[in-house]
Amino acid sequence: MIDKHQIASDFRDLQDRICLAIEQADGKAKFQEDIWQRPGGGGGHTRILQEGKVIEKGGVNFSAVDGAMPPILQQKMNTQAKDFFASGVSIVMHPQNPHVPIIHMNIRYFEMSDGTYWFGGGIDLTPHYIVAAQAAFFHQALKDVCDAHHPDYYPSYKKWADDYFYIPHREETRGVGGIFFDRLSEGNGKSKEQCFDFVKSVGEAFAPIYTALMAQNKSKKVTEAEKNWQLLRRGRYVEFNLVYDQGTKFGLETAGRIESILMSLPKYASWQYDIKAEEGSAEAYTLAHLKKGLDWLG
Amino acid sequence: MIDKHQIASDFRDLQDRICLAIEQADGKAKFQEDIWQRPGGGGGHTRILQEGKVIEKGGVNFSAVDGAMPPILQQKMNTQAKDFFASGVSIVMHPQNPHVPIIHMNIRYFEMSDGTYWFGGGIDLTPHYIVAAQAAFFHQALKDVCDAHHPDYYPSYKKWADDYFYIPHREETRGVGGIFFDRLSEGNGKSKEQCFDFVKSVGEAFAPIYTALMAQNKSKKVTEAEKNWQLLRRGRYVEFNLVYDQGTKFGLETAGRIESILMSLPKYASWQYDIKAEEGSAEAYTLAHLKKGLDWLG
Repeated sequence: MIDKHQIASDFRDLQDRICLAIEQADGKAKFQEDIWQRPGGGGGHTRILQEGKVIEKGGVNFSAVDGAMPPILQQKMNTQAKDFFASGVSIVMHPQNPHVPIIHMNIRYFEMSDGTYWFGGGIDLTPHYIVAAQAAFFHQALKDVCDAHHPDYYPSYKKWADDYFYIPHREETRGVGGIFFDRLSEGNGKSKEQCFDFVKSVGEAFAPIYTALMAQNKSKKVTEAEKNWQLLRRGRYVEFNLVYDQGTKFGLETAGRIESILMSLPKYASWQYDIKAEEGSAEAYTLAHLKKGLDWLG
Repeated sequence: MIDKHQIASDFRDLQDRICLAIEQADGKAKFQEDIWQRPGGGGGHTRILQEGKVIEKGGVNFSAVDGAMPPILQQKMNTQAKDFFASGVSIVMHPQNPHVPIIHMNIRYFEMSDGTYWFGGGIDLTPHYIVAAQAAFFHQALKDVCDAHHPDYYPSYKKWADDYFYIPHREETRGVGGIFFDRLSEGNGKSKEQCFDFVKSVGEAFAPIYTALMAQNKSKKVTEAEKNWQLLRRGRYVEFNLVYDQGTKFGLETAGRIESILMSLPKYASWQYDIKAEEGSAEAYTLAHLKKGLDWLG
């Protein structure tokens, strides 16, 4: 029977493997690690990579925290449970080359002293320039992972990602979506072990998917206009993370370790007034495909 | 007796005078104007200045909107009033040179069909590098404006600004504060006209204060390290505006004109992991003075 220690331990191992794979694919940068402790219990390993050859700024964070349920959490979750345990791995990568997409991955486990628990997670891709074939490759890889566990997972978690990674005030999705799920626990013919197996396979999928996208795009030529467009798209990423991302909001409200939470923000971003994409341009193509409900595998 | 038309008209005139003063002080850039209409009633004049000699990006917005109270507004304000009118001038200036501070000014008027109304506003200064003498000059100018109208205004509105322009997750004020007030209406021996006179004098104070700070700092030499520090401080400005600023949040929630609302964001900003200021440096001095309750005139 898996327990929280096993889950946290597997998450830590995953963090190691992902960091190695990213360092190898980058060819230059090394992660710097900060080990931190949470005053209320537990802690984490924040690993940040800056100024790599392929990755300009990225983070692969592991944490496993426990202790008394903060009142704000009891209220939000409508529970009297006294203690909690939470562990997860969180990744965001901001590449140098605008033709390499931004990526995010998170898997997490949460349990309370009243015995309730659940898993959550997701992967989503934010290309500065959308390329249909690459979006299809990405979604096919996620569908393969999902289908190996349950036929409902891909369609429902793909829709969940479309709805979650959305910027209402821009009427844009953050990127080409991916999968997102939360409150996954035993039921529907699945045991806790099987849920965890699925979550781990989402985590394992990250490195092969992203290193392939890095290799495919890292050497593409870049114009000044494309670099500028990348800065503007990163501005949207900042808007999503600071205004809508539930994990970020929760971290800010509960006074989490701020430098670990905001590692998701890019090194450089830009806002320029009322930018329009030229008709027929790659930028216009991208904007036209920042929509919910697109079937990249169709 | 002043009415909403008079107030909006005076606000528009103020916008014109401020834009002229900024253009003159900049010496190069011209504001571009977008006139927009709000589907539900009213509209605005957004004026944006980009790539000036002194100002990298800035906006001076005027709007006067009216119509049916949006349900979310009725709920927030706990009212049954059917219609509203709102007018204001909003300014943010992001300078090129890190020794010129960022500044924000807003004055506004709101009324509802049940006869309630109020004024609000504020000015606050966000130096990338705090200079005590300039913070004192700024606060003295605001105190002079306040004291001409009521002896309580400066101390209470200064405190209000300290509390409002605060970034809890960084445990930093946005800058050296200024004044902030809301829900100002007749009472305490003041008529509506006298309240409006005060609000106008806040608006009139903006241009002389900021053009003086521009002139004083625009030609200072700048190192690469100082430019980088400016980008990091702008990152904090983005965090405040997207996470905490009530006006921005309200605009995003009510689907206001997004390009006008987010004109407050800088052209370029940066986030770098776990930056520390060197002991005894100008950066460390600045961080040590991003605190509530400092008496710059003491």
